[in-house]
Amino acid sequence: MKPRFLLREALRLADGSRRLIRRALDRGFKVRAKSDKSPVTDADLAVERFLRRELSRRFPDHGILGEEFPERNPGAEYQWILDPIDGTLSFTRGIPLFGTLIALQRRGQPLVGVIDHPALGERCWAAAGLGAFRNGRRVILKDLPPGARVEREVLAACDRAQFSRVGREKVFDRLSRSLPHLRVYSDCFGHTLAMSGAVGAMVDYGIKIWDIAASQVIIPEAGGRFEIVERLGEAYNTVLGKPRAVSWLLKRL
Amino acid sequence: MKPRFLLREALRLADGSRRLIRRALDRGFKVRAKSDKSPVTDADLAVERFLRRELSRRFPDHGILGEEFPERNPGAEYQWILDPIDGTLSFTRGIPLFGTLIALQRRGQPLVGVIDHPALGERCWAAAGLGAFRNGRRVILKDLPPGARVEREVLAACDRAQFSRVGREKVFDRLSRSLPHLRVYSDCFGHTLAMSGAVGAMVDYGIKIWDIAASQVIIPEAGGRFEIVERLGEAYNTVLGKPRAVSWLLKRL
Repeated sequence: MKPRFLLREALRLADGSRRLIRRALDRGFKVRAKSDKSPVTDADLAVERFLRRELSRRFPDHGILGEEFPERNPGAEYQWILDPIDGTLSFTRGIPLFGTLIALQRRGQPLVGVIDHPALGERCWAAAGLGAFRNGRRVILKDLPPGARVEREVLAACDRAQFSRVGREKVFDRLSRSLPHLRVYSDCFGHTLAMSGAVGAMVDYGIKIWDIAASQVIIPEAGGRFEIVERLGEAYNTVLGKPRAVSWLLKRL
Repeated sequence: MKPRFLLREALRLADGSRRLIRRALDRGFKVRAKSDKSPVTDADLAVERFLRRELSRRFPDHGILGEEFPERNPGAEYQWILDPIDGTLSFTRGIPLFGTLIALQRRGQPLVGVIDHPALGERCWAAAGLGAFRNGRRVILKDLPPGARVEREVLAACDRAQFSRVGREKVFDRLSRSLPHLRVYSDCFGHTLAMSGAVGAMVDYGIKIWDIAASQVIIPEAGGRFEIVERLGEAYNTVLGKPRAVSWLLKRL
């Protein structure tokens, strides 16, 4: 199947998930705590159900791995990887920085990725070989010049709580103290900023496969670098952004 | 002059500044460094010029204090306090969380405040005695219950760099380590979240008079508490949000 066709399908899915999420924001939704105490809403469930139903109808042989429901067709050549609402805590509190993550891998290789921010009206996406886009505009990251003083760049990290989840809070504290322009962005919003060069790079720790799969296509297609620093069980510790900023950070983590 | 009338004028100004900022985002703008090395754009200047021109025409006797130009009528009974773009760095980088701050004081007392986020399409405002609003909906903050474990709440702080400006980086480090759900928000976006209860409270350090004047009306009108912890020269260190969360934080700063 052609990446262009699969990308179009993924974008169509994101149109649908955005509609559902906006409707939930207008009409309200119920929140409950999951077994790990993180919140889930009936909107998370409704969006993932919608995505699964559409995908199963269009691509009955494909696999689906999503945050909220059991895996489907685990051995399949094509695997869709879904997070209906990344940043549910933000979603429940009226903080508009959450997003929907839709990714497709073929034989484990990143093929298509979409990050959609329904409340911001922002979206970025990419497909292997077809480039990366933010709100319809092609994004080509300009790397830092050789020898650039990376510590003077605006760099980003996820919340300290994410570092804590994988016992790496000292990494946050060290970054915080040594990078005068470090900013903190929760969830996939930091990836959107890194893919478009708004920040030089982001250090994002303690995230799951559905939080990285879209960016694993989008960041390299934008001319950036996506690196997994380590994997601890189901959690990935990552660095993503402009190649020289990522290299510089990797040496310091 | 009636608060309702003055609020309407402030909201009309925010409509105008939003148009100018959106146009600058569409068409592009020039950035240069100010003497303190922070960035300023021709959009910052154009917006403040617009606000000053409108105010001088409508209220020739009023004072105006703005970030980018000299003070006007410093002794006047009514003082408008303006920050055309709070978060210029975000604005220049495509990070949609910056905002325009418009406030009015009468004899030093907060009377009207508006925080407008042009790229988010969000706005909050208040006038003394008339309540606080976010996007047209009345906001009435629900305080934490007595005895609530405030350290379990989602609380916010500004960037560590802001604490550094006033030599208080250790306050950030302490908050970071002791509050498992601390989030970091730059500029006035954190105030918007605190006014609507999206976070329990925000600790915002190293900010200027034009960064606090709008919130000094909005937060109390929403049922919250706005406190100045200390003033160091032109910089204010503040805590704002739900009353019990603010009290709890004040004891620990």
